[in-house]
This record gives sequence, structure tokens and C-alpha cells, in this order.
Amino acid sequence: MENQGILRIGIVGSGNVATHLAKAISLSKHHLIQVLSRNIDHAKRLTNNTNAEAIDKPKLLKSELDILILALKDEVLHSNLISQFPRDTIICHTSGSVSMQPFIGFPKHGIFYPLQTFSKQKEVDFNEIPICLEANSEAVLQKIHSLASSISKHVYEINSQQRKSLHLAAVFACNFTNLMYNISEKLSRESGLDFEILRPLIKETAAKVQEHLPAEVQTGPAVRNDNLILNKHLKLLENHKDYQDIYRILTNEIKTTNEEL
Amino acid sequence: MENQGILRIGIVGSGNVATHLAKAISLSKHHLIQVLSRNIDHAKRLTNNTNAEAIDKPKLLKSELDILILALKDEVLHSNLISQFPRDTIICHTSGSVSMQPFIGFPKHGIFYPLQTFSKQKEVDFNEIPICLEANSEAVLQKIHSLASSISKHVYEINSQQRKSLHLAAVFACNFTNLMYNISEKLSRESGLDFEILRPLIKETAAKVQEHLPAEVQTGPAVRNDNLILNKHLKLLENHKDYQDIYRILTNEIKTTNEEL
Repeated sequence: MENQGILRIGIVGSGNVATHLAKAISLSKHHLIQVLSRNIDHAKRLTNNTNAEAIDKPKLLKSELDILILALKDEVLHSNLISQFPRDTIICHTSGSVSMQPFIGFPKHGIFYPLQTFSKQKEVDFNEIPICLEANSEAVLQKIHSLASSISKHVYEINSQQRKSLHLAAVFACNFTNLMYNISEKLSRESGLDFEILRPLIKETAAKVQEHLPAEVQTGPAVRNDNLILNKHLKLLENHKDYQDIYRILTNEIKTTNEEL
Repeated sequence: MENQGILRIGIVGSGNVATHLAKAISLSKHHLIQVLSRNIDHAKRLTNNTNAEAIDKPKLLKSELDILILALKDEVLHSNLISQFPRDTIICHTSGSVSMQPFIGFPKHGIFYPLQTFSKQKEVDFNEIPICLEANSEAVLQKIHSLASSISKHVYEINSQQRKSLHLAAVFACNFTNLMYNISEKLSRESGLDFEILRPLIKETAAKVQEHLPAEVQTGPAVRNDNLILNKHLKLLENHKDYQDIYRILTNEIKTTNEEL
């Protein structure tokens, strides 16, 4: 019997996604019932300050759970572990790059993919994190949508193909962007400058595209076709052949993109 | 005669840097006296709502100015225009990549380089913008430091060699980062997804390195050495040979950097 739309949630995993998700759900109107991890101490870390129970075996999962969220590494989703979970609960995973295929054999299943970069050290406001949903039926979609919208303002329904493209886009927007930060940090450090000096620029560059499209706010020597500076920069990178290659290929891409506009 | 350390400032130029600088100085304890632009209407746009005078010829510059800031394109700094400016005023430029060489012949000169990406459409809080200073004498440095610290909390003294490296680092941290955003926007658009969905991720990626070093917070399939996903992504990019090349080179760089740690 449902209690006025209150859902009973179980989480499997104890990594970054599981940690932040457990916290957000425990603060929502829904009930976090159990957290499962092979390492009971890890599970306890997540249930700390909540009413949820920490468990370390799939067979301890309660039959009353409405939704079981697997916040696990991709390879684990393809492993035998999956077969040990109950069939009568809605089962979801949080991966950007795995389809619903591991859930064939589960009558009610879906995807609950939060698009964000999580670290254990840093708090996040889950309310601002886009959650991308997919489900094998309208009834399942309604349930996981109810959960998603209780912890985030931004809920999207996207299919597996779109999710894969989104995950790829996120590699550029997040992982490769962080590499650019890392290179800039090394270059400034080598000149005896503190990374602190670059932080406001990084913040503003991200702030600009919150309101504009990136193509509208591209700046720098490449988009100005300022070959004098471009050549000076390549020369400065003479002792970093790898950065030189990266500088060249990204500069060419900016030039080409700009010509197409 | 100085009025309790109040400096009288002139600005040459009417682009993004000149615009934001004029505004910040007019709100500071110092006095913005004149704005010079070849196009008088452009100069007037900057003096609007200030007590400053708009002028369109170097010979109209007042002899009482303490500091004249040239917020001009690099190529103009190397042009004959420079010879038309008064010799008894401190003269500075705002470029990240030009040395003090154009000011040989000016007894008091320096650099006033704000490290930020400016757009006319978007307001900036100058107080948060690092200003990098260099001067040909201690007396000049003191004057431009007084001006810089009246409009920003972050004032650095760096030499020309450091400034060139910083400008190069900024290309990675800002211009190339924006290219990454642009590619992610295109990839999401091609899948029928709104860029809106990626914006919180971009914001958080920049927020993370405000407190941590980029190397500490690198995430994604490359740093995990997740070749299954890396190959899937390369396959997804089959119709974008240029993005495929960029994906490959940046992935290799992340892998190499990670091995060095």
C-alpha cells in the first residue's frame, strides 16, 4: 500500500554518485530505506544521519522497496551481481553509457542518470543537477519521475541513444575542460605564477555560457586569426611538444568553426 | 599638485577592455578625466554617466593626466599612433602579449593587464579581476598599483616573460575551454538535446578548481583508463573526424599526465 505517493528507496553502491544521491533522497519527501555495499562500513557511512539501514548482501534487501538504484561502475552492471536483485522492484542504474540491456528479465526497470561531476570532498546542490530518465513503461517512468523531481528542479526524459551522446558531450564539457585547466596550471606554475591568478578567468568563462551559446562568446587569438600571437605561443611551447600539438589542433578547429559561421 | 593621492586617468580605446575599465575607474576614488577614441560617438558611449570628457584626437589630451591607459589592439600598440601621446604622463597598455618595448622614449611607462574575458553584453565585477602590473620604475609602479588596487582586490606584479606565459595559459583556460563547450553544444544539439542540460556540469567543473588543483579533480573515462567507453566514444564521432582527432589527442594527454603522477 502506498503512503500518499511516498516511495521507499534502496541504493546499491557507496561511491560518489551513491553518496550524494543517498543524502539528497534522505532529505526529500521520499524514504531512503536501505543502502547496500559489499563493505558494510562504506554502507554505514552513507546511512549515517539518516533513518536508512546499512546492509552488505543483496538477499537482505527488503521486499517493500519501490525503487532500487544501482549507483555502480559500468563493468559491475554487466556482471553476475545483477541477477541477485529482486524482480518485483523497479530497478535503475545511474550510468551515462550503459543501456537498459542489463535489466532484461526485470519487468520494471529504467535509468536514473544525474549529469554531474561528483567528488566526495565537495558538497553539491542536487536541486541544480539535471537528472536524465528512461524507463521500460509509462508506469515506471511516473515513479522514477516522482523521485527525480523531488530532489532536482531539472528532470529530462531522454532515450539511450541521446544519453550516450550526452555522456560524450559531457567528456568535452567537463573532463577535457579540466585538462585545459590542468595545462594552464602547469604553464603558470612553470613561470613562477600561482594558479590563483587564473581562477577568476575560469569562473567567468563558465559563467558566460550560462546565458550565451559558446559560439557567441568565443574569444582569443585563434578566432581573431591573430597569427602573430599564435606563432609566438607555439614558440613558447617548444619544450612541450604535446601541448604544442594540442594548441595547433584546437586553434585550427576554432579557425574552421569560425569560417563556417 | 596631487589631491590626497587622487589620480587623474585617461583611457584610449572603446573596446571591451576600455569599456569595463572606464566604468570601474569612474566608480573608484580616482578621477576618470578623458576617454579618447577615433570615433567620438564610441568615446561618448564610455563617458556616458561619468564626469569624463569624450575626445577624438590625441592632441586634445590634457597635460594634467597622471596615467594614460591604452586599451588598444596589439597591432595598434606597434603603430605610429603611439608617438602622438604626451611624454610627461605615465603611459600603460593592457595587453597580455606585448612587452614595454613600444614605450621606449616615454620616461614613465608600464603595463596594466587585467586577466579576464570581457564581453560588452555581460557585466563583470572588476573587484574580482586579477590585474597584472609591470613598470619601468618603482615610482611608476606605486602609482599604477594605487589605481589597480582601487578597482580590484587582486593585484599582481609580474614581468613581461611571466605575462606572456600567463597569456598563453589563459588561452587554454578560457579560449580552448570555450571550444570544448562549443563542441559539447554541437554534439548535444545533433542528438536533439538542449544545451541547457550541460550548463550545470560546466558551472560545477569550473567551481571545483576554485578550491582544488585541476590534477586533483580530473574525472572521466580517460583517467580511469576505461578503454571500452573510449572506443565507444570514438565510434560515435565517426562523422566528425576533427572531433575524433581532438578526442584522441586529449585522451592520450590525460592518460600520460595520470601515469606521471
